[in-house]
Amino acid sequence: MTVSDLHVERLGRLQQLMIEAGVDLVAIAPTANMRYLLGFMPHPDERLCVLLVGQVSSRFVVPELNADQVEANTGRKAIRWSDAEGPMQAVEQALSGLGLKEVARLAADDTMRADALLVLQEVIRPPGLLAAGALMTKLRMRKSDEEIDLLARAAAVADEAVLVGADACQPGVAERQVAAKIEAFLRQRGAEAVDFIAVASGPNGAFPHHEYGDRLLREGDAVILDLGATFEGYKSDVSRVVHLGQPSAECAAAFEAVLEANRRGRQAAVAGALAQDVDHAARGWLEQTGYGPHFVHRTGHGLGMEIHEPPWITAESDTRLEPGMVFSVEPGVYLQGEFGIRIEDIVVVTEGQARCLTGLDHALIVRS
Amino acid sequence: MTVSDLHVERLGRLQQLMIEAGVDLVAIAPTANMRYLLGFMPHPDERLCVLLVGQVSSRFVVPELNADQVEANTGRKAIRWSDAEGPMQAVEQALSGLGLKEVARLAADDTMRADALLVLQEVIRPPGLLAAGALMTKLRMRKSDEEIDLLARAAAVADEAVLVGADACQPGVAERQVAAKIEAFLRQRGAEAVDFIAVASGPNGAFPHHEYGDRLLREGDAVILDLGATFEGYKSDVSRVVHLGQPSAECAAAFEAVLEANRRGRQAAVAGALAQDVDHAARGWLEQTGYGPHFVHRTGHGLGMEIHEPPWITAESDTRLEPGMVFSVEPGVYLQGEFGIRIEDIVVVTEGQARCLTGLDHALIVRS
Repeated sequence: MTVSDLHVERLGRLQQLMIEAGVDLVAIAPTANMRYLLGFMPHPDERLCVLLVGQVSSRFVVPELNADQVEANTGRKAIRWSDAEGPMQAVEQALSGLGLKEVARLAADDTMRADALLVLQEVIRPPGLLAAGALMTKLRMRKSDEEIDLLARAAAVADEAVLVGADACQPGVAERQVAAKIEAFLRQRGAEAVDFIAVASGPNGAFPHHEYGDRLLREGDAVILDLGATFEGYKSDVSRVVHLGQPSAECAAAFEAVLEANRRGRQAAVAGALAQDVDHAARGWLEQTGYGPHFVHRTGHGLGMEIHEPPWITAESDTRLEPGMVFSVEPGVYLQGEFGIRIEDIVVVTEGQARCLTGLDHALIVRS
Repeated sequence: MTVSDLHVERLGRLQQLMIEAGVDLVAIAPTANMRYLLGFMPHPDERLCVLLVGQVSSRFVVPELNADQVEANTGRKAIRWSDAEGPMQAVEQALSGLGLKEVARLAADDTMRADALLVLQEVIRPPGLLAAGALMTKLRMRKSDEEIDLLARAAAVADEAVLVGADACQPGVAERQVAAKIEAFLRQRGAEAVDFIAVASGPNGAFPHHEYGDRLLREGDAVILDLGATFEGYKSDVSRVVHLGQPSAECAAAFEAVLEANRRGRQAAVAGALAQDVDHAARGWLEQTGYGPHFVHRTGHGLGMEIHEPPWITAESDTRLEPGMVFSVEPGVYLQGEFGIRIEDIVVVTEGQARCLTGLDHALIVRS
């Protein structure tokens, strides 16, 4: 199958889902969804750029300055609008080309900018408005073998990047410097985007979304390394913990609890189970060991062309796991003012035991 | 004025503008607007995180896993919601805390994710819905002296980065390698974000939004270098053209036309003029010299905490220029299949002649 056939097929499947769901129009912005459907997304900015998908055909509204590039990369014809005239007429022309005088139900790309959605709402005035996520999830949640290969390749580079980061961790080095080493490594390996790098040392580790700052690492620190980068459109995401010197008993106990929660989570990731079963397996162990109140987030999230995408591995999710689903298992414990521990792997659901795309050893990385 | 006083004052000015505009509620996502108003924005993801500003007070709805970090960095109390329970109740609690049983007019942050806006629309069901951009623009469009200092410092590093990129341009080197050198330099200088890097060589230069790829530079190429990075929340944006070997007569003529358009644009950037006057000054020259159809974008955009923000320097903009406004002047000529030329500066409107924050020489950089 050529790339182009692949994209024709994906668009056709979306249209089939639209018919089943009674959605007249799906509006896709320059996001992972656009890249999934067309194989390309132009540089996103404040200019309205939207693929309008009807049940039988589609139109592509593109700012004039991106139009030649978009046509060259997608083989599709763009309906152009210029900075001087604005996008309203182009949207109307697209709707009329789709034969849509009235749209009863519009589904908007989940990560579209609000100002773009407001423009579409103003022109289209749909009585029904919903997020396109539910439809796109049906298309994207089960990965093909080709997609899993790409995710595995991205994961392998991320594994190496963790080791590069671990090597850079020593007393007196700033979080920012460790992050720079990881970033340089990922760029040198050809990452098209470095999606995020966290070097969360000592008390900063207790903020699950700390990225990195000027804090200098110290003897006795636990340091969460968490990173993700994009290769050929597919993402990675992995976390390990480095410790400078031997951990305290408190830290070692938290680490062991998280490690066992991670193992139980991965083990529960089997076809036919629910996403919540994975969460319960990991969370249950942390609750049993007294860390429940310190595990303040879900156990995981899907991974693919987005760093966070369905399935969501939460306590309430009733998504049934199917082969080809790919997600993180990343229990954590966060002790305010002290340290954080998170151990994250990426697993693929198969007919048997889940396959782990992250290949790193799970032990605490002690640097002395 | 301490940082905290600064943010209290900004929020108060927004509330004053809301009263004047008859807006009951402004919803701010983790965007530049949040950082402008609070001095901090948490890691944005698919979890709803929203500052809800009423006319007299405000509430901050935050995912539980970011709440401690947000409270530590903003001194504000968060209304927390967990991955298990979802954000609906927290939004309702915030509205009730604001004394807003009904919201007649909701203004949504322009770059908020559509799925977040859909959640707010579902809970709030406002009869009137608009983009918050018009209000935030009134706050942010005229920069303070402190903001201009930060922009000048960001611009100075960007100037150096262009020279680093120019040095890396030689036949046989890939666009991606040049970009990596620029990126490494910006990171090493402490950029908190590298917003974009374009190395658009030969025919790739004819796509105004080409970033970089695997194309190898060749003798005879014109190469547009365009880049921007963030320091202390403020952005830079600058473009220059490098030529490998002496340019053809056609290329030299296009360069001279763009250079004169850039000069005329900058000269027109005076207090009391309209934004469109700047566009007309630059565009008029390109039209006069026969390049009009090849200048496919506006002449510029505002710059501050966002890489693109008001004022928009378009052919139709009737924004009156005032001291403290900061924007790009970046005319370009794009000849499909051949090359592109763009020369971009950042100017600050003053009481007299515009001040140029970019300090680079304007001549074509010829590498032989």
